[in-house]
Amino acid sequence: MIVKAIAIDIDGTLTHKNRSIDCRAVACLRSLDIPIVLATGNVLCFARAAAKLIGTDGQIIAENGGVISLEYDGTEYYDGDIDACEHAFDALTEHLGTHIQKLDSEYRKTEIALRRNFDALDARQIVGEDIDVVDSGYAIHLKSKDVDKGTGLFRIADLMGIDASDFAAIGDSANDLQLLAAAGFGVAVGNADPALKGAADLVTAAEYGAGVVEAIEYLARWM
Amino acid sequence: MIVKAIAIDIDGTLTHKNRSIDCRAVACLRSLDIPIVLATGNVLCFARAAAKLIGTDGQIIAENGGVISLEYDGTEYYDGDIDACEHAFDALTEHLGTHIQKLDSEYRKTEIALRRNFDALDARQIVGEDIDVVDSGYAIHLKSKDVDKGTGLFRIADLMGIDASDFAAIGDSANDLQLLAAAGFGVAVGNADPALKGAADLVTAAEYGAGVVEAIEYLARWM
Repeated sequence: MIVKAIAIDIDGTLTHKNRSIDCRAVACLRSLDIPIVLATGNVLCFARAAAKLIGTDGQIIAENGGVISLEYDGTEYYDGDIDACEHAFDALTEHLGTHIQKLDSEYRKTEIALRRNFDALDARQIVGEDIDVVDSGYAIHLKSKDVDKGTGLFRIADLMGIDASDFAAIGDSANDLQLLAAAGFGVAVGNADPALKGAADLVTAAEYGAGVVEAIEYLARWM
Repeated sequence: MIVKAIAIDIDGTLTHKNRSIDCRAVACLRSLDIPIVLATGNVLCFARAAAKLIGTDGQIIAENGGVISLEYDGTEYYDGDIDACEHAFDALTEHLGTHIQKLDSEYRKTEIALRRNFDALDARQIVGEDIDVVDSGYAIHLKSKDVDKGTGLFRIADLMGIDASDFAAIGDSANDLQLLAAAGFGVAVGNADPALKGAADLVTAAEYGAGVVEAIEYLARWM
């Protein structure tokens, strides 16, 4: 294949375990001359700051596919039913208790992120059939079932005029499964969720940012 | 003196000219075992992302002193008269024209940032006497005159239980003047505004992030 662009998760992939950026991985990304799409479950303003600091051109998939943006100050494209997520949140607080706590709800447009102080499996029995409960490892997300990082990749790839199958994708969590599936080649870093490793074309020996460096050295043959 | 903490600007100081993070400066900050306060004219959600990615404990002065936060998900302390800033904005659009454009107003709580497509000097003749017009080099800020990175440093130093005079401050722009004045020792990086260089205890030979590395090597004698 020819890798025309890379879609890459941030937390747990481009970072160290403490979520600080791995500068070896950043240097590796900066050495490439193809578009880098940051694909995160985090909110757009976090992802835009990350894009600016990492030094990408600002193509972003945020909120697990719910928010797309092509440049730092550019148009924001939304997808997902936030009202249905709010109904699911109400059901969770009713059944599991008031300790269910929203995270950065002020900034979140298309889904709800919750503190990881309850069991996502229990939650799946409570929320409606249209709502996914996804544990990114950093938060538990209530999101529309028909929106994920994969639908986000198809949408931004279309906006960028690049086929999703010409992307290589790199991630670590369950919420990266559809991203890897949508891309032409999928990489799971060494610290990745077993489910993601099972779905990946390449599992790096190295973990976190060091795994990204290993992945990009492998992908270089197709760039 | 003893340097018990560092307050440091982000854009133009910890970054390269294109605003991407300088990883040599980041490595230098990570090697220190004293608190690092990020002091920026940018909004809190940008600064929090920067703190997370750089790997600081999350002490932040955002919006040129208008917003203070001690930790990633912690309490936000506000200072400044946003209504007076809105009146100043109305006066600017009336006198200078409708090309006067707000930046990330959705995220800004205590001041107004404007695209740098007009002359800040002209604007100072138009806004009320309580409003400062400050060019950070990345935006032109309309802010309360009695709020700046210096008042922000005094406030966060008090919250941290450290005297502002035990901070070393590092910056590059005119909006860092009061930060350097409030700190016990002030550093201007080599690319800094001449006014800031004139007010600094140390002007580094190196520019941008390389200047930060030079500054921290100099300050090490007091840590």
